[in-house]
Amino acid sequence: MTLVIRPAADVDRAAILAIVAPVLAAGETYAIDRDLDAAGIAGFWFMPRHEVFVAEIGGRIVGTYYLQPNQGGGGAHVANCGYITAPEARGRGVARAMCLHSLDRARRRGFRAMQFNHVVSTNRGAVALWQKLGFSIVGTLPEAFHHPLHGYVDAYVMFRAL
Amino acid sequence: MTLVIRPAADVDRAAILAIVAPVLAAGETYAIDRDLDAAGIAGFWFMPRHEVFVAEIGGRIVGTYYLQPNQGGGGAHVANCGYITAPEARGRGVARAMCLHSLDRARRRGFRAMQFNHVVSTNRGAVALWQKLGFSIVGTLPEAFHHPLHGYVDAYVMFRAL
Repeated sequence: MTLVIRPAADVDRAAILAIVAPVLAAGETYAIDRDLDAAGIAGFWFMPRHEVFVAEIGGRIVGTYYLQPNQGGGGAHVANCGYITAPEARGRGVARAMCLHSLDRARRRGFRAMQFNHVVSTNRGAVALWQKLGFSIVGTLPEAFHHPLHGYVDAYVMFRAL
Repeated sequence: MTLVIRPAADVDRAAILAIVAPVLAAGETYAIDRDLDAAGIAGFWFMPRHEVFVAEIGGRIVGTYYLQPNQGGGGAHVANCGYITAPEARGRGVARAMCLHSLDRARRRGFRAMQFNHVVSTNRGAVALWQKLGFSIVGTLPEAFHHPLHGYVDAYVMFRAL
């Protein structure tokens, strides 16, 4: 079945939050409060400056990402994204497709580069995927993430031109 | 005259914003929208998670800084600060004193490290001062800042343990 990526609509909110909430609560990949309630999670994922997309397979939402400017003012030409794939859809190229879609979308919006500020080093699948898609580790933040299983681990700043 | 650093009080707001506003409008050092109005500037500098301090010489406010967690969740043990010195007080050690104060305050609050996410490379005085105070450049963001005079220039990620 075909993977489709499209802008999120209001009716998608519950399906999106069902994918996002367990990932934030697990707290292994996002440096976001782990105890946000439903309103807090929605407030984060759907904050006004986030442009939100969904990935669908056979009409079922299996992933979501947001795109935003990473900074304001003189930093507003660099984009930033966050991606989450539903556990049951892992290994099907959803994250890769979302990232490629986001790179294209960011180019169309006029961004000149994309930056991930805080990629947890133990999230090896993600690090390897972003590298395959043209991102470089441009910085290492020593022990900047406290992982619930692994303790203090490094986080990476990853960057690519568009 | 003695330099005193203390928590900001409500009555300090106008003096603080008089120092902050021109720096944000100039847009040479902070990656923040340059056209924020007074409410937007106050909303940024006094956002709820910012703990704000002032530097005073002879009862006159000559500098201000904020301290906050740089991330939430697993990243909440790393602090972040922003510092601004009034132009007429430059060269008197105000930035240095504020940074040392912030390092001490961050330690007392239990932070384990401090990170600056986006130090504009042309802001050489600041880069050199942070290095003297124990920060390292742990990442270089290529052309991540569009400087009003110099065009696209690098920005640095700077980090130190506490």
